[in-house]
Amino acid sequence: MIIVKIGGGNSLNINSIISDLSKIEEPVIIVHGANALRDELAAKLGLEKKTVTSVSGYQSVFSDEEALNVMMMAYSGLKNKRIVELCQQNGVNAVGLTGIDGRLIEGKRNNGIRVREDGKMKILRDFSGKPKKINLKLLNLLIENGFVPVITVPLIDEDGYAINSENDDVVALLTNVLKADKVIQLIEAPGLMEDPKNPDSLIKSLSSMELEKIESQVEGRMKRKILAIRKLYETTNPIVYISDGRIENPIINALQEEGTTIK
Amino acid sequence: MIIVKIGGGNSLNINSIISDLSKIEEPVIIVHGANALRDELAAKLGLEKKTVTSVSGYQSVFSDEEALNVMMMAYSGLKNKRIVELCQQNGVNAVGLTGIDGRLIEGKRNNGIRVREDGKMKILRDFSGKPKKINLKLLNLLIENGFVPVITVPLIDEDGYAINSENDDVVALLTNVLKADKVIQLIEAPGLMEDPKNPDSLIKSLSSMELEKIESQVEGRMKRKILAIRKLYETTNPIVYISDGRIENPIINALQEEGTTIK
Repeated sequence: MIIVKIGGGNSLNINSIISDLSKIEEPVIIVHGANALRDELAAKLGLEKKTVTSVSGYQSVFSDEEALNVMMMAYSGLKNKRIVELCQQNGVNAVGLTGIDGRLIEGKRNNGIRVREDGKMKILRDFSGKPKKINLKLLNLLIENGFVPVITVPLIDEDGYAINSENDDVVALLTNVLKADKVIQLIEAPGLMEDPKNPDSLIKSLSSMELEKIESQVEGRMKRKILAIRKLYETTNPIVYISDGRIENPIINALQEEGTTIK
Repeated sequence: MIIVKIGGGNSLNINSIISDLSKIEEPVIIVHGANALRDELAAKLGLEKKTVTSVSGYQSVFSDEEALNVMMMAYSGLKNKRIVELCQQNGVNAVGLTGIDGRLIEGKRNNGIRVREDGKMKILRDFSGKPKKINLKLLNLLIENGFVPVITVPLIDEDGYAINSENDDVVALLTNVLKADKVIQLIEAPGLMEDPKNPDSLIKSLSSMELEKIESQVEGRMKRKILAIRKLYETTNPIVYISDGRIENPIINALQEEGTTIK
């Protein structure tokens, strides 16, 4: 079982990714983002990204109903269906799904953020949360019958509401529940970089042991990335390929260990 | 088997439709439109509906790639996922699908329209077509396992391209292939009206025999509607309810024969 995460940037070579996938014999699950598309659509619709600042000074994106609408249009609508279409053109029998379809991915909605408004304390709760449970019945039904699930947000919360979530968390949950032996993450960089500004600083290989050490040494985005990778190893032991999604043959390139390979 | 077609108008009472559906014991398939939402989105994005006029003087909508993008956002993205979400909140285990997912509905792409441009004859071909084949394997897999398919455009053509199509044709093909015994069409009117401007002109009942007679007597939109209903009777003999989708309990109302009932 290979789980392929396709990042949400606009410069990924989706045509070549799907063409590569059509040559793979193992069962595949695709998880994709669409953040660049979502941001473009929001800008065209004149919607600004809403953020809130908590009492403790922590700023975060606020996913209200309108933000979910735009997310559904970009992720579950345009991006998901164009990827499914491309799969079909390449002989990959894809079925596009979100976490709410058949309760495929249930999440726990975030409790809300404590903010101060007009001098008063308030809890603001948005439509976001963390994936907790995979509906294996539906997923296995599709996989066993030769379909390739193409999965994206939203997820569904305890009360049946659509919620936004991090794709990294979705990939981690799928990897652990399905005991996937390979995870390919296609990004807009050659792989994990020691210094993102230095193209020659690619980390070629890492042991899953080394991840913890690196996590304690880095900050910001990189720290979050490493934490997300560590989550892939909670109950299973996959080979993780973090590799360039912009080039020709991104999947073949990843499996040939041309990016960062973590064993 | 009940097939429910939910029109694409904004005034339909989707909450009550789905709540009604949760009380139905028979297997259900939902087919929905989103034309009002699509038109609103296109207007917000500053996209005009493109039309072409054929050599023979016939005007038609032209579905180019951009039009398909908007359609995917409105139909397969926002509308489909919000209906699935509402189903889940009402205990209906819905799975949203388009015709391209698992090649659920294959269509034949239209050949193109002969137009005159700068004095020259040209064939303009858009992404539209007619549904021809249902992938029963995927559909039955879902239905037999208790899932409720929530279906919308696009369909997939012979070459794997997403194409636009009429929902009426999709409903007719599903009805005939699945031998559905009931078809409920929820619209923004009390039912079929002898005179759309006269609210007291509801046609309470019709035999499928009478349809042909009426079709020869009426013009325009009504003629197209009757033709679409006649297609429901090609290989099977369902009861067809054409009924108000804007009121409370639209499904119960339809099954109580408060709209137009065709047997």
